[in-house]
Amino acid sequence: MSPFFASRWVAPLDHVTELGADGDVGLPAGFRAAGVTAGLKPSGARDVALIASDSLAVTSHAMFTRSGTQAAPVLLCRERCELGSIAAVVVNSGNANAATGDAGYDDAQAMQELAATATGVHPSRVAVASTGVIGVPLPMDRIITGVRAAGKALAADGDRDFSEAIQTTDAFEKRARVQVALPSGTVTVTAQAKGAGMISPGFATLLCFVQTDAAMSAQTCELLLSVCVKRSFDRISVDGQLSTSDTVILQASGASGVTVAPESEDELRLGEAIDAIMRQLALLVVKDGEGARRTGRVLVRGGDERTVQRVARSVANSPLVKAALYGADPNWGRIAQAVGAAMPHMAPLALDISIEGVLVCSAGSFVTHDPYALAAAVAGDEVEYEVQLPGDGAEAEVYFSDLGHEYVTINAEYTT
Amino acid sequence: MSPFFASRWVAPLDHVTELGADGDVGLPAGFRAAGVTAGLKPSGARDVALIASDSLAVTSHAMFTRSGTQAAPVLLCRERCELGSIAAVVVNSGNANAATGDAGYDDAQAMQELAATATGVHPSRVAVASTGVIGVPLPMDRIITGVRAAGKALAADGDRDFSEAIQTTDAFEKRARVQVALPSGTVTVTAQAKGAGMISPGFATLLCFVQTDAAMSAQTCELLLSVCVKRSFDRISVDGQLSTSDTVILQASGASGVTVAPESEDELRLGEAIDAIMRQLALLVVKDGEGARRTGRVLVRGGDERTVQRVARSVANSPLVKAALYGADPNWGRIAQAVGAAMPHMAPLALDISIEGVLVCSAGSFVTHDPYALAAAVAGDEVEYEVQLPGDGAEAEVYFSDLGHEYVTINAEYTT
Repeated sequence: MSPFFASRWVAPLDHVTELGADGDVGLPAGFRAAGVTAGLKPSGARDVALIASDSLAVTSHAMFTRSGTQAAPVLLCRERCELGSIAAVVVNSGNANAATGDAGYDDAQAMQELAATATGVHPSRVAVASTGVIGVPLPMDRIITGVRAAGKALAADGDRDFSEAIQTTDAFEKRARVQVALPSGTVTVTAQAKGAGMISPGFATLLCFVQTDAAMSAQTCELLLSVCVKRSFDRISVDGQLSTSDTVILQASGASGVTVAPESEDELRLGEAIDAIMRQLALLVVKDGEGARRTGRVLVRGGDERTVQRVARSVANSPLVKAALYGADPNWGRIAQAVGAAMPHMAPLALDISIEGVLVCSAGSFVTHDPYALAAAVAGDEVEYEVQLPGDGAEAEVYFSDLGHEYVTINAEYTT
Repeated sequence: MSPFFASRWVAPLDHVTELGADGDVGLPAGFRAAGVTAGLKPSGARDVALIASDSLAVTSHAMFTRSGTQAAPVLLCRERCELGSIAAVVVNSGNANAATGDAGYDDAQAMQELAATATGVHPSRVAVASTGVIGVPLPMDRIITGVRAAGKALAADGDRDFSEAIQTTDAFEKRARVQVALPSGTVTVTAQAKGAGMISPGFATLLCFVQTDAAMSAQTCELLLSVCVKRSFDRISVDGQLSTSDTVILQASGASGVTVAPESEDELRLGEAIDAIMRQLALLVVKDGEGARRTGRVLVRGGDERTVQRVARSVANSPLVKAALYGADPNWGRIAQAVGAAMPHMAPLALDISIEGVLVCSAGSFVTHDPYALAAAVAGDEVEYEVQLPGDGAEAEVYFSDLGHEYVTINAEYTT
């Protein structure tokens, strides 16, 4: 297993090969990227990022947060962007351009136009994303300088700089580079994600950009992205908080000459590869989880589709369950409590609970087990919880981070 | 203002007089209580509590958690208790008797019968409540000894012992004793509550017992209790976690000879008094909130009834908002984010946000204000947030605790 695909929850794929180790750079053919320092972050770290395809045939799809308080760039992208043919993406970190009103919308549009000029495409083909503090106007002088500098710095190996420039409270880089052997030929896929807090199971709550040199229609981009989001960023929770700014974009330059036709074996294999990348990136976001020590996975079976979803999220978002995960405490009573909270008026409930394969609760009642063995089993980096509800058929999983002192420190001291 | 009614969110009432200061004891006429040490808590603190009315005419009402994983005593009370004429209540702390199956139910029934014998009433007139660890069988030998000892210790001034014996992670006592001047005469009301964690806005998530020597029908008990719960325990959140065991019981002995008739001025005045007591007790639970430093109140206006409720709970349960409250950080962007998360697909949303009366966001966009003055304003014990949504008519409030290091410490180290 490669260093990138590190989680036991992402199955290795024979046709997917990681390109190099950490630190290696290089985008798929037809893409250039850059990340520069524009002075938006007090730390002086990179904070303006740009990615652009040189191919006029580039296709794409984009998905955004469902929040009712969407940031200006999200509103702009939804209203003024050709989501099926995004050629360039401009991103800033350090300021979310959210709750900034009409002036914020104008600023997002100015960013779009600056990036269009810097990359030589029509503004409607430029997506914009901002992440950082809410409710503070964008310092447009710095944005102008930053986007121009990023345009000049665009390079085929600019993915690491890009990745650095989109981060905020991230403790480590979240970046993938793989080669995918398809029946019709070999393609490359790269991806850069950011996110550590304000991560909710309800879709992304982060930024993630995926590039491939495969050739495919915008409809295929939409199909692959929406299926993969459902199985990755839609299934994670750091703190149950839906962000104002979540954006996920897939771009296909077509520069490899390998065409991925609808309903082909190529499409299936490429989908598997993007799925693995996005699941691993999502797990890295959970692992980063603003000071997280351990990652949990809750798998709920039985009942109906709505119920298993609600129960899985109730467990994953429970601060009591999360604190127990942090403390390596196999406190399954809190799992039972979180399940019950999500299924009001259903008592008594004949549920089974297993932790790391050990049955601790059967038909709603405790099962005698070795607490020391179980305590040792939950002390690892990844802990698995299984809940079986009465009935069968439906199934839902959610990945979640723990709740520890570092989360409190980061979020009690992170400045407005 | 008396020491008990300490919050600015509970308006003083001219016809309600607090009886004595902290440490003073004494129940309304017709009640006796006790709290003893039975060895359920490793600390050796009191852990079995009993309260009983000597009046055969005692009336009552009881309300329970809506959880789908209700503890055995809750199931027992719902199935085998005359909720309109509860004469005695037996409680243990240190063990929730939850997720304990049929044997747990039998144990709860044995507790009911033991308390019936100890107090001389029919078992169906005894309510049972247990609080503590989930999924561990009740040590019945200790329960038997404890209930018998409590029966012998019953005393008119046993309310403080009772109050101590129902506590778990509580940092301080939550107990009220007031005299209420009604048009028809003077009555006494006492109350004892416990709760610090697993506190959700969805009803009680705690134990609270209220006694009065007023004479009233079971229907009046039900009316007063349900209205007061709606305005108190239904409006608080420590961690958004609905417990398996929440129980609130109001008992009226009638021993004062003052009759409270339906729809009378007496009923209104007594309701105001119980409302004030239960609101203050609910605020004390939030204040205790497993290590909480500050209490927040979010008031949401506008929209419709369902929306304001959902938005208020989204803000109150947001770990980001709670961590900012802990850090005395007037980070209103997190309020905007939590509102947006509760109103998907409604962007752009013209919402106003005020913190401690300072308008920080108007029509969805930031308002320039003095950040230093605001930071000073949110450093107190109680912080008020107001959210105005488009439209008008509905209004909802939720009280919530902050999220700090102490919460993590308590919940990462609290043993299964």
